[in-house]
Amino acid sequence: MNRNSAQTHRIAPRTGVAFRLPKGAALVVVDPEGTQVSDLLAFAEADVREVISNGRTFDYEQTLSLTTGNRLWSNRSRVLLSIEEDTAGQHDFLLTPCSKDTFRHFYPDKPVHRGCFGNLAEALAPWGIAEDQIPVAFNCFMNVPVHADGSIDVLPPASKPGDHIVLRAHEDLVIGLTACSAYASNGGAFKPIDYRIDLQSEGNS
Amino acid sequence: MNRNSAQTHRIAPRTGVAFRLPKGAALVVVDPEGTQVSDLLAFAEADVREVISNGRTFDYEQTLSLTTGNRLWSNRSRVLLSIEEDTAGQHDFLLTPCSKDTFRHFYPDKPVHRGCFGNLAEALAPWGIAEDQIPVAFNCFMNVPVHADGSIDVLPPASKPGDHIVLRAHEDLVIGLTACSAYASNGGAFKPIDYRIDLQSEGNS
Repeated sequence: MNRNSAQTHRIAPRTGVAFRLPKGAALVVVDPEGTQVSDLLAFAEADVREVISNGRTFDYEQTLSLTTGNRLWSNRSRVLLSIEEDTAGQHDFLLTPCSKDTFRHFYPDKPVHRGCFGNLAEALAPWGIAEDQIPVAFNCFMNVPVHADGSIDVLPPASKPGDHIVLRAHEDLVIGLTACSAYASNGGAFKPIDYRIDLQSEGNS
Repeated sequence: MNRNSAQTHRIAPRTGVAFRLPKGAALVVVDPEGTQVSDLLAFAEADVREVISNGRTFDYEQTLSLTTGNRLWSNRSRVLLSIEEDTAGQHDFLLTPCSKDTFRHFYPDKPVHRGCFGNLAEALAPWGIAEDQIPVAFNCFMNVPVHADGSIDVLPPASKPGDHIVLRAHEDLVIGLTACSAYASNGGAFKPIDYRIDLQSEGNS
């Protein structure tokens, strides 16, 4: 069995899903059409109070620019995921998922959408994860340049059709994953996200 | 009553405290000797599951460089604190508090200390705040340059003796505050932090 034989799942535009990712498996997140963002959360299945932490990750990895070879650390200082492949090379771990509140704030003239935050909250509820337990997501393909004065922008992703990132689970995880709902992060073109789970162990690849 | 008449409290080196900060009051955090960091957390007293969020703050303030005029937002998209004065002009909201784990990771040849994380956890426990609820702190005076490639450094603070930051409470808050315990953040010289609470309302100042 090779990686490409795993079943590909499609996340419809402006929706989100949650699923189990067992220890040792790889999650492949694909931007099928390009220029789309996918918010990713990872919780330890054994105790969902343990979750990825941007602050712990920035500290241990000594960078805000996370790509192949970097690891995503939890609030309990354990590695939950490591990045094994990355054809995009640009992701964000600074910003929280878009929500009703961010829609009201940034797009006051547009319809309010529950956003990635609402989609993640609904998808993760069956695992006993409450809204307040949703931290900053690892935002695959999101383009957030940091300027010399510390100011930031949210620009359309530079990802091309088929760009993907492969993340290996270091623990049994609950994953939340979205096709982003916000205007700024995907250039106003709401698109799907694809993913697949490769259960093949690293040693057999 | 002017601001300087408020009682000054001293946080001993490598310790931390927690206290109530009522809505409308100002918290003045002072680096009395210079080149020291103070990790600051703020929780909504009415429901401590609401807490300052670096991701929400970066999103709404559109910058990583927070100073006079900027606001610290909660995970529920509400302003908990606003920065009214800032003589230092350099703080960090990227990194989590130092902990036993970060001591083992970054200083393997030095004695393990529970760090700001352990000090905050003990001080906040009486309010029913658990370790897993401690997010990225607003690290007053901490010097974390972000380079063009996204890499970061932790350098000694540039703060001078007497530098201070004044934060106004927008809700009734529980504050956690430390005199930092880590080697890198304060140049290896563990120093105290001073603070005072100015109950005077903004309109009467």
